[in-house]
Amino acid sequence: MVLKQMEAYLDNSATTRCSERAKNKMVQILTEDYGNPSSLHNMGKTAEDYIKEAKEQIAKTLRCDEKEIVFTSGGTESNNMALIGGALANKRQGKHIITTAIEHASVQAPLAYLKELGYEITELSVDHDGIISLEELRDAVREDTVLVSIMMVNNEIGAVEPVEEAAKVIKAKNPDTLFHVDAIQAYGKFRICPKKMGIDLLSVSGHKIHAPKGTGFLYIRDKVKVKPIIYGGGQQKGMRSGTENVPGVAALGEAAAEIYENFDAKTGHMYEIRQRFIDEVTQIPGVTVNGKTGRDSAPQIVSVTIEDVRSEVMLHSLEEYGIYVSAGSACSSNKPAPSRTLQGIGLPKQKLESTIRISFCVNTTEEEVDYAVEKMKEIIPFRRKFTRK
Amino acid sequence: MVLKQMEAYLDNSATTRCSERAKNKMVQILTEDYGNPSSLHNMGKTAEDYIKEAKEQIAKTLRCDEKEIVFTSGGTESNNMALIGGALANKRQGKHIITTAIEHASVQAPLAYLKELGYEITELSVDHDGIISLEELRDAVREDTVLVSIMMVNNEIGAVEPVEEAAKVIKAKNPDTLFHVDAIQAYGKFRICPKKMGIDLLSVSGHKIHAPKGTGFLYIRDKVKVKPIIYGGGQQKGMRSGTENVPGVAALGEAAAEIYENFDAKTGHMYEIRQRFIDEVTQIPGVTVNGKTGRDSAPQIVSVTIEDVRSEVMLHSLEEYGIYVSAGSACSSNKPAPSRTLQGIGLPKQKLESTIRISFCVNTTEEEVDYAVEKMKEIIPFRRKFTRK
Repeated sequence: MVLKQMEAYLDNSATTRCSERAKNKMVQILTEDYGNPSSLHNMGKTAEDYIKEAKEQIAKTLRCDEKEIVFTSGGTESNNMALIGGALANKRQGKHIITTAIEHASVQAPLAYLKELGYEITELSVDHDGIISLEELRDAVREDTVLVSIMMVNNEIGAVEPVEEAAKVIKAKNPDTLFHVDAIQAYGKFRICPKKMGIDLLSVSGHKIHAPKGTGFLYIRDKVKVKPIIYGGGQQKGMRSGTENVPGVAALGEAAAEIYENFDAKTGHMYEIRQRFIDEVTQIPGVTVNGKTGRDSAPQIVSVTIEDVRSEVMLHSLEEYGIYVSAGSACSSNKPAPSRTLQGIGLPKQKLESTIRISFCVNTTEEEVDYAVEKMKEIIPFRRKFTRK
Repeated sequence: MVLKQMEAYLDNSATTRCSERAKNKMVQILTEDYGNPSSLHNMGKTAEDYIKEAKEQIAKTLRCDEKEIVFTSGGTESNNMALIGGALANKRQGKHIITTAIEHASVQAPLAYLKELGYEITELSVDHDGIISLEELRDAVREDTVLVSIMMVNNEIGAVEPVEEAAKVIKAKNPDTLFHVDAIQAYGKFRICPKKMGIDLLSVSGHKIHAPKGTGFLYIRDKVKVKPIIYGGGQQKGMRSGTENVPGVAALGEAAAEIYENFDAKTGHMYEIRQRFIDEVTQIPGVTVNGKTGRDSAPQIVSVTIEDVRSEVMLHSLEEYGIYVSAGSACSSNKPAPSRTLQGIGLPKQKLESTIRISFCVNTTEEEVDYAVEKMKEIIPFRRKFTRK
């Protein structure tokens, strides 16, 4: 008799399973309503309607206008478009950009490209919880600051940046500075109302919210100028050319609508299982959690440092039990470079290399969490025995 | 009793139905094997394996190395990356680019962007069949020509450009000039071996070959330098950052493998139904076919001029019978701008506005073709009665 091994997928900040609703919509469009939205006949119209519906679904979650949504191929493209497109379209404003020391590679790398083009980049530091200082931000904003880019939720430790307050600080000092927020780990976990919060540009990825990979969008506030980064047939009002990924877009709209249904119950569930996990795991000697752990941090992410057990060893040991976690951020290809976030919060080198990320989703069960903790309790003392030799 | 109306989807050059094999693979990955290829655990490894498999499938069809394939979000991104990335990475070679007068908007528009950056663009004319002149090409290549971009199959009339001969002409005059081929309408309809044919960069779109929308790739010949246009986590060896669209990539690999199975029979079938359609439709008075019609043109595209019936009128009349065709190219958003291809082959204004595109795929049946012709025979005289008043 073969018993199927228990599994616990706790790497939801790397990527999520596509939801049934999103998948069903996708299949319908791939095989039945497969027209090109640029075609003038019915099938084109049907495809266009799917895009319109998805825009409405998303606009509703952000309380914004449908016209403010541009679909992209994912979070990385959204960040590239916001930063490169935003900086180049507003050159006259200046060539100074402010960001933080703990941004995702998809923000850091386009900024490095802009630096090549002569832009000056100021990086804000963070405290031991990964939070920026509004004072430091205030001091950094200048007359020639074209753009400020701050992530809403850090992908490694779940720190929540004070973006609404940051917007006020920025706009008070320079109303012409654009404010971009990478909301890739925040969307679907927080209610985000860009207009109310003073956000001009907001990046979202589909596959972090149970939509398919290869989908995402950029919110561009009405009247904000962004230069496209991909040119062609003029789709999406010229902002992003290329035949729209209709099945992906529709699935993204569906996933967005779905995740914001019974929203408080969903985030409440994630906060609960996260608390349960933290309570249990920190009982293991030499195990600590980085950053804030309450409702002032993200519901889905826990950064766990396990003294004297290297993160890859931990990851692979857990994997043997069907438990999937991450060593740092999985989104930065598979180069094991030291985490800038963990360095940013001042973690010493040894701890840096002994930190794993556990990340939940709305479907994560208590059973999975308990199973993971149980196995960690077994594995950690065993692994330490070898490490300490 | 309600009879389901007969339908004929004859707009396959706008987009195709996703194949069952591609769709099934996609669903498997969306809901079961949904890991992030950058994750270090098994689920990441499985995702990485899907990408590897897709690369192998595609490399086999092009007889190239797997390392020469970079996945993109579609044909438009592939063309943008080839042109912008190719030109910027090889700046020292010069700032002169050669293209043709009948390229798709996804080539024209990035070249217009490069023009803004100071590049000089030479456009080759075409003859009445839409074919470039190799002499004109030879005369155009200069010492500072960094790039030549020529489509393999024109998307509106199915003209097949002599790309292999063009490569020889280019390289004989300037071996350092890069040769890009937009193969978006050619891949899956012709055997393409970029290495043998002297092609350095080759763009392909997924949704033209029964793969999902939002997928495509760029072939970059070994040692050819291209600057990325999207920056981030360094996926795909830094050439195209962003979490890979694993379900899309795998479905693209599957569709590529599928379309090249029993390839001669498939293209033979398309040539046959195309001939059947041309034979029948040209018997209608005042109906002519533009460009070449034999095996020296593409198997899937027919450009039909119907005197005294405007193309949109024809399109919508056919639509009433469930017959879907295109007025010009559907991929250039839905602005009804005059076709540059039809202008390029010297079609007079009146004919320009009376031309539709019929496009087949491997699954198009004789029955569909006969049905379309039958309805055209009914509609055309009827519509002319009104037009001629």
